[in-house]
Amino acid sequence: MGDIKTNIDGVRLKKLNQHHDERGAVYHYIKNSSPEFAGFGEVYYSKILSNVVKGWKLHKESIQNFCVPYGILKIVLVDSRKNSKTCGIINEIILNDSDHYCLLTIPPNIWYSFKSLSPDFTLLSNLINIEHNPSEGENLPLNSPKMQYQWM
Amino acid sequence: MGDIKTNIDGVRLKKLNQHHDERGAVYHYIKNSSPEFAGFGEVYYSKILSNVVKGWKLHKESIQNFCVPYGILKIVLVDSRKNSKTCGIINEIILNDSDHYCLLTIPPNIWYSFKSLSPDFTLLSNLINIEHNPSEGENLPLNSPKMQYQWM
Repeated sequence: MGDIKTNIDGVRLKKLNQHHDERGAVYHYIKNSSPEFAGFGEVYYSKILSNVVKGWKLHKESIQNFCVPYGILKIVLVDSRKNSKTCGIINEIILNDSDHYCLLTIPPNIWYSFKSLSPDFTLLSNLINIEHNPSEGENLPLNSPKMQYQWM
Repeated sequence: MGDIKTNIDGVRLKKLNQHHDERGAVYHYIKNSSPEFAGFGEVYYSKILSNVVKGWKLHKESIQNFCVPYGILKIVLVDSRKNSKTCGIINEIILNDSDHYCLLTIPPNIWYSFKSLSPDFTLLSNLINIEHNPSEGENLPLNSPKMQYQWM
């Protein structure tokens, strides 16, 4: 399956395959040969309870590779890179474990936040190209006026 | 957290950290610097419906790195490597998303099968050191007399 158009330069959103049978399913995620793969630092999960919003977060160095193997997540991306041709653009993206089962690749220096829309919780998987290092991360409060986006 | 003793030579079972707060949790899985990490081929999920048993399966080349971010899985490992000091040993291991949230590393040439014990389904994550290649996998039926293990 091909890429889904996103607006922000460098952000990639790609439908991933699922193979279902009477026993369950196999969900693809990311391979060494995937064009999005930029090295292996770490893979981990975030469990996000229903209606919880997390963010804003930005990574100065690491590339995020998100998928949602359980639940529903709304993700908001904000491009505030001054040298970007899409500076100022905001994207809202849904990832879930069914019809929007996708790989979302977020390059460095994009602000993001997300909300779990599942009635119980959402599992977000993230594969990053370098190991977690708090010194390359930045945070802003959800209501920061810099973000030009209001979560309801 | 340290290694949990397993009997079969080369199999590793290690408790993984979870950091919980009022919004959810972060579940560790595997890092480039983890001693179990032997290269990145692919990471994917198996969704296994309740009471389904899958197996027997053996990989001649790839190393499996399992964790269960959702549900409960019983895994049976059989060492039939003639040159192994634990040849003939059978291990039964529980992986789940709570008190047995672990990384299970299975070296090549170990037979395995597993059953989903969760009332809805189980998500099994697997990171393998080479990309999926059917030619390096072998299968036997669950009731094969070679396995000396009967699933009920």
